[in-house]
Amino acid sequence: MSFFPNIQSIKYERPGSTNPYAFKFYNPEEKIGGKTMEDYLRFAVAYWHTFTEDLSDPFGTGTAERPWDKYEGMDLAKARVEAAFEFFEKLNVPFFCFHDVDIAPEGNSLRETNQNLDTIVAMIKDYMKDSKTKLLWNTANNFTNPRFLHGAASANNADVYANAAAKVKKGLEIGKELGGQNYVFWGGREGYETLLNTDMKLELDNLGRFYHMAVEYAKEIGFDGQFLIEPKPKEPTSHQYDFDVASGYAFLQHYDLQDYIKFNIEANHATLAGHTFEHELHYARAVNMLGSVDANQGHPLLGWDTDEFPTDLYSTTLAMYEIVKNGGLGKGGLNFDAKVRRGSFKPEDLFHAHIAGMDSFAVGLKVAQNLLDDQVLENVVQDRYDSYTEGIGLDIMEGKTDFHKLEEHALGLTEIHHKSGQLEKIKATINQYLLTAYAQNK
Amino acid sequence: MSFFPNIQSIKYERPGSTNPYAFKFYNPEEKIGGKTMEDYLRFAVAYWHTFTEDLSDPFGTGTAERPWDKYEGMDLAKARVEAAFEFFEKLNVPFFCFHDVDIAPEGNSLRETNQNLDTIVAMIKDYMKDSKTKLLWNTANNFTNPRFLHGAASANNADVYANAAAKVKKGLEIGKELGGQNYVFWGGREGYETLLNTDMKLELDNLGRFYHMAVEYAKEIGFDGQFLIEPKPKEPTSHQYDFDVASGYAFLQHYDLQDYIKFNIEANHATLAGHTFEHELHYARAVNMLGSVDANQGHPLLGWDTDEFPTDLYSTTLAMYEIVKNGGLGKGGLNFDAKVRRGSFKPEDLFHAHIAGMDSFAVGLKVAQNLLDDQVLENVVQDRYDSYTEGIGLDIMEGKTDFHKLEEHALGLTEIHHKSGQLEKIKATINQYLLTAYAQNK
Amino acid sequence: MSFFPNIQSIKYERPGSTNPYAFKFYNPEEKIGGKTMEDYLRFAVAYWHTFTEDLSDPFGTGTAERPWDKYEGMDLAKARVEAAFEFFEKLNVPFFCFHDVDIAPEGNSLRETNQNLDTIVAMIKDYMKDSKTKLLWNTANNFTNPRFLHGAASANNADVYANAAAKVKKGLEIGKELGGQNYVFWGGREGYETLLNTDMKLELDNLGRFYHMAVEYAKEIGFDGQFLIEPKPKEPTSHQYDFDVASGYAFLQHYDLQDYIKFNIEANHATLAGHTFEHELHYARAVNMLGSVDANQGHPLLGWDTDEFPTDLYSTTLAMYEIVKNGGLGKGGLNFDAKVRRGSFKPEDLFHAHIAGMDSFAVGLKVAQNLLDDQVLENVVQDRYDSYTEGIGLDIMEGKTDFHKLEEHALGLTEIHHKSGQLEKIKATINQYLLTAYAQNK
Amino acid sequence: MSFFPNIQSIKYERPGSTNPYAFKFYNPEEKIGGKTMEDYLRFAVAYWHTFTEDLSDPFGTGTAERPWDKYEGMDLAKARVEAAFEFFEKLNVPFFCFHDVDIAPEGNSLRETNQNLDTIVAMIKDYMKDSKTKLLWNTANNFTNPRFLHGAASANNADVYANAAAKVKKGLEIGKELGGQNYVFWGGREGYETLLNTDMKLELDNLGRFYHMAVEYAKEIGFDGQFLIEPKPKEPTSHQYDFDVASGYAFLQHYDLQDYIKFNIEANHATLAGHTFEHELHYARAVNMLGSVDANQGHPLLGWDTDEFPTDLYSTTLAMYEIVKNGGLGKGGLNFDAKVRRGSFKPEDLFHAHIAGMDSFAVGLKVAQNLLDDQVLENVVQDRYDSYTEGIGLDIMEGKTDFHKLEEHALGLTEIHHKSGQLEKIKATINQYLLTAYAQNK
Repeated sequence: MSFFPNIQSIKYERPGSTNPYAFKFYNPEEKIGGKTMEDYLRFAVAYWHTFTEDLSDPFGTGTAERPWDKYEGMDLAKARVEAAFEFFEKLNVPFFCFHDVDIAPEGNSLRETNQNLDTIVAMIKDYMKDSKTKLLWNTANNFTNPRFLHGAASANNADVYANAAAKVKKGLEIGKELGGQNYVFWGGREGYETLLNTDMKLELDNLGRFYHMAVEYAKEIGFDGQFLIEPKPKEPTSHQYDFDVASGYAFLQHYDLQDYIKFNIEANHATLAGHTFEHELHYARAVNMLGSVDANQGHPLLGWDTDEFPTDLYSTTLAMYEIVKNGGLGKGGLNFDAKVRRGSFKPEDLFHAHIAGMDSFAVGLKVAQNLLDDQVLENVVQDRYDSYTEGIGLDIMEGKTDFHKLEEHALGLTEIHHKSGQLEKIKATINQYLLTAYAQNK
Repeated sequence: MSFFPNIQSIKYERPGSTNPYAFKFYNPEEKIGGKTMEDYLRFAVAYWHTFTEDLSDPFGTGTAERPWDKYEGMDLAKARVEAAFEFFEKLNVPFFCFHDVDIAPEGNSLRETNQNLDTIVAMIKDYMKDSKTKLLWNTANNFTNPRFLHGAASANNADVYANAAAKVKKGLEIGKELGGQNYVFWGGREGYETLLNTDMKLELDNLGRFYHMAVEYAKEIGFDGQFLIEPKPKEPTSHQYDFDVASGYAFLQHYDLQDYIKFNIEANHATLAGHTFEHELHYARAVNMLGSVDANQGHPLLGWDTDEFPTDLYSTTLAMYEIVKNGGLGKGGLNFDAKVRRGSFKPEDLFHAHIAGMDSFAVGLKVAQNLLDDQVLENVVQDRYDSYTEGIGLDIMEGKTDFHKLEEHALGLTEIHHKSGQLEKIKATINQYLLTAYAQNK
Repeated sequence: MSFFPNIQSIKYERPGSTNPYAFKFYNPEEKIGGKTMEDYLRFAVAYWHTFTEDLSDPFGTGTAERPWDKYEGMDLAKARVEAAFEFFEKLNVPFFCFHDVDIAPEGNSLRETNQNLDTIVAMIKDYMKDSKTKLLWNTANNFTNPRFLHGAASANNADVYANAAAKVKKGLEIGKELGGQNYVFWGGREGYETLLNTDMKLELDNLGRFYHMAVEYAKEIGFDGQFLIEPKPKEPTSHQYDFDVASGYAFLQHYDLQDYIKFNIEANHATLAGHTFEHELHYARAVNMLGSVDANQGHPLLGWDTDEFPTDLYSTTLAMYEIVKNGGLGKGGLNFDAKVRRGSFKPEDLFHAHIAGMDSFAVGLKVAQNLLDDQVLENVVQDRYDSYTEGIGLDIMEGKTDFHKLEEHALGLTEIHHKSGQLEKIKATINQYLLTAYAQNK
Repeated sequence: MSFFPNIQSIKYERPGSTNPYAFKFYNPEEKIGGKTMEDYLRFAVAYWHTFTEDLSDPFGTGTAERPWDKYEGMDLAKARVEAAFEFFEKLNVPFFCFHDVDIAPEGNSLRETNQNLDTIVAMIKDYMKDSKTKLLWNTANNFTNPRFLHGAASANNADVYANAAAKVKKGLEIGKELGGQNYVFWGGREGYETLLNTDMKLELDNLGRFYHMAVEYAKEIGFDGQFLIEPKPKEPTSHQYDFDVASGYAFLQHYDLQDYIKFNIEANHATLAGHTFEHELHYARAVNMLGSVDANQGHPLLGWDTDEFPTDLYSTTLAMYEIVKNGGLGKGGLNFDAKVRRGSFKPEDLFHAHIAGMDSFAVGLKVAQNLLDDQVLENVVQDRYDSYTEGIGLDIMEGKTDFHKLEEHALGLTEIHHKSGQLEKIKATINQYLLTAYAQNK
């Protein structure tokens, strides 16, 4: 049987193709900067948005039409696996990601929940044998169940903490079983609603201990995936501890975890924190903490996590620029933590949305590589900072100066020459690269 | 003499050209939808940002290098006129805009200020004889002088109100003298800092009276330019009365001014109000109040008016889509109410920035026209609303129904069929139009 | 039986009381400005937040412990009515509000839904006979059901429009039956997700027609409640047509509805629109459109509708100041459109939260009346605007001037004298009034 | 001579006093929690806002009436010193703060600037002999001069870096000379306008080196003040490196500076970063990095740094709660980095504003101490976290557990019991404490 009987495998056609079920820009075999597009663009489908999500919002019940929703309980879970692998294959996508609760229903006890997981994990493992699609990462959903009302690894309740630990333990075992390349922590309830009833230090200390135990357990069972924290500033809590990459990095250093955990950076979480997506990527790169990416986008005028499929080519270009400069994402990838709009409720929209996202990142990669090939921004940067390549500038860079020498230098200056930052010209240049990336007369 | 001796006239070359002093996309003679680009794109240079602005910000003094800044007082004012017309000619731009204080220094009295204005207006009129560049609009700056501390036409002080009126009176005379096609009101101080000391009704009533007097005076002197209000939600005040187009339209209707005044819509003001630029344009178009445009853009993560040169091609495309659907802007135009960044302080940056903006709107026009030619969005809309073309839907549109008939229809329905909104697919399509607009294999 | 067996009727004690189940500031019989507190503070309980809400959020399932949740279907609906009237009585609250779907479950057809409503409405009517609690307003929920995916009275689908009309028709009949003093429209889906597939003019025209039909039908059945539109800028849509009071007022004037409909102003909706709560109240008052209030508050750092119980005494003071200046709210009231936090999931929290809100508005009323008694802000305003009481100022106010006379006056001025706005001093004074409202040494 | 001839020394009167030139709540000698109010409330006047600021804004020139503005150059600088010490004495304030450029004009060379500084510093030192007012902190303004266009200690230009270093060197010498208790770094231009031309790693590395050199130089000259970084997320730059306390703490740890530098936390900077003021204080306290405070407040609806005088009693209460829990601020203090509104332009407004701020923090201190005396929040916290005092909870706290033991515990749980967070009740309690702090019947 088929859940998407009317959809054929999605193939690359060409820019300008009018076939809505084809890639116009994502060409897996195309060579970009010495790799193939597929090598660079380690796309993952997010199980929750694609197979579990019903498109409800705080003011309305779900609208999604999903052929597998005629099933219930474990039958539904199994139908979703079938649908998922059909979808992966038709989309020709190399990775997927999931939370525990996405793939199997919670039972009446933790034990029963784990049994449900075992059944579905075995089924997934079986499907993976015949599939090219691998597990980019899995995680434990420690936020949806009312149990996590006041937090999970930062809960005010030791029983909840223990439950959260048990779920992560299971998650690491599943990651090991399915060959997951990473394991992600998104602390949906790790934060606070109000400081008025919160002991932040106790919560942060417990969170630090929790991550150390996770690292220990992974070592114990031989799970060698990369650990990743996914920052988000707020929502559902008023304030989440992993506000942004810098906050998370402060935490990891404080608790001596910086050698074991990197970051999974989500575009929409970045913008909610007041940063551009590329800022978070660039900063993580600067401190060697860039792990993986949740590829989506927010609405610049809305104050909540809209998790839109990424279609803004400026954003995909600047993101891919950072990723290419980073030498790729290593074990990480580009997970579409994105949901179709409530109004895009048809099964076909799942394909349209992923095609839109994959094409957008393919364009981003191509434009970024063109910019790099021509050293457009590199030349700008080199020229701007050239005073640090000799004299007092070189001394500064090499740590050979002090306030006495710097003052002496400053007292000897008669005039300081500045160069224009030329932002407007740079932006126009990027527009040109964008508009001519697919032009023959480039 | 020349203020920009190293810059030649800017000409159209082609997409991909590496000459930074050329248009790559703006080709004035190119035919788009039956008009020339120049007909559609009635670009204007903003005198204040280009010839008066020093690029100071709240935390720093000015950085701008402007060759005319060696002059002072009326000599400076005259040098700026020379610089302006050299700039207009080299940029090949059809319009300019100014506030009274941009072109001539304020004197020690209103009388002296007016004399200064007369001198410079005469000089400008003289220069205009040999120039293709016309006056899109002028306005009175009733916000910079400390006199306007608590407002101008909504001031708590009748003397200030009278002074503001005298300045607008002079402004209308200048508009008449120079053939201005519009006259703009931006109420920089028409609002409040706090409600705690404010009588809003008195202020709004006075503002209404002020506009009626302006309309009367224009009629008296035969000034036939279009009146325009420019909405902005806040800054410098905590709350400005013309918050957005809808607020302004509520005001104009309340005071019976809707037949005399339309709107000048600024992109960055729209975003500060929580709207997209295209929302404000579309809404104004829907109520037949679209007058003119201040073409710039804001920074989505900054909460103040950044007045950046427009380079976001999504924004220019959607703006031009609204403008083309409106049949153009009539007497209105696209005024670059945009300033180069503080770091882009060289005279050349003024050219780079305007080229960036003009090229971006030219691309926007081209992509919008291509979308319209192929009826891309029109087909989506027609399909979505087709239930209003017959039966109960047509009755609704024609006002032939009531709650009884509608209830009867509703009681008879067994199921309601919905169509997907397909936003992801539409966005991907727009990306395709953008990326292939300059491709030969389109 | 009792749903709140451990809670006694809530009585007024005094400031400083340590009884958590007592009012400390709300004293219904206390005289304030010639009325009783109860006359001024027409509090209403919102049925949905108090009896239907499960405290789920976008990242978690419900946490609320509600004794009536052991029932299902119509039994649940009936149990809620019992719980509601027990709650109303124990809280001693004069009003309640509801949406159709709050009180009765939707059936398999509109007809069945209406039958369910009839059953529960009859039950409510019966309970109301023995209760002091009246219906402040009811409304139709035309946003939760997937049917309203693309809007209701502004839907792209005529069948949906008819269904929405039938629901409002029923709502008006229910309002008539239960003696509702107002009828509210909150257009949760009346707006758009994207302009790219939207015909705004068609939708606004249909919305205008819809309201006219509602007004007609109310007249037909003799329902004499006040019609109210409740503005909200966004959420769930990206842009709602009733963005704020000014937008709504523009709409009402455009469609000649301003004589039939006023506004229901919600604090949190105001802040989401970029306005203070008091701004919306003041503006509505200035244009004579203030109808009723949804009393809640938002979180200043969160970008979604948090619907918190109002406890900010600055906000309640400034709101009550506007309401007292308005001579009260007429048929309107103060509806607690507020939900307990997800972490406040116990039935008792419903009492704590309402007590907090009622006490906060009682304090606001008292402080506002004290400020008015001492003419604190009135004196500030009178002094600031005194130039409009004579001479040219009086001419302006009386419409006896024009630009010639104003210019003549301005030319004759040698200096303009300004008064300080003294905001810091005014704020300190308000703090004093707040801190000493309950002090004996005041 | 006197610059404020009509103002007498400000004394404490009592709540309810109608004398605008008296403290109603700040009573320096009043005992609070074993200290005097003056001990706790180490208020400082900000030289720049009070003696240098002209109240201009981006849309208007200055409005401030300042009697010393009749002077120019060094005479103006000297007059300001006289005005400052008269102001300090009349306000009875224990501290002041300044930037180098506030006290002395920049000369034509660094050498001349330093000479100007020497002259004024000597004069200030002389005035300090007869004054109780001490130097809380000084700093170098490395952002106003166009030289700092592209940054200072993170500039792209080594000459600028050297100049910035020379200015900080001088600043440390001045701090030593005047007995400054802290030295502050606010990196107004340490950040970027755009990533497109920025090498963040180079800039951060240089910034790290800069701070190390400052620490070294302070040690060399025996300056023993506390170093403080003042975070701000944006403005004037698009992104500042010291975005918030957590970002700054990540930086300090990365560059091994955490033992030498703490934080100066500004209320309005906190809110611009998306945090509450109390969050930043609490987090800094949790990681032992709380140094000093810039006491002001922002406007919750405006997106720029409004630097208002603090009058929100909720904010001052929660801030003082954190400070008292911290055992006070040590060498730090409460600097009024706050400016009177543009409309509050009279010299008297400087007094009104400081009185408002000092009274507000005095109230905050009193309410916070009352809450602490009654252990209101402490009891809430103790109750919420009590599961960590024994059994598995204690094991977690003591680091005696692992994922195996936690899973075993979790598997044994049949139900998890939650307590309500009771936020609404807590907020109502805080309101009661506020309203009855000055009531006799408390």
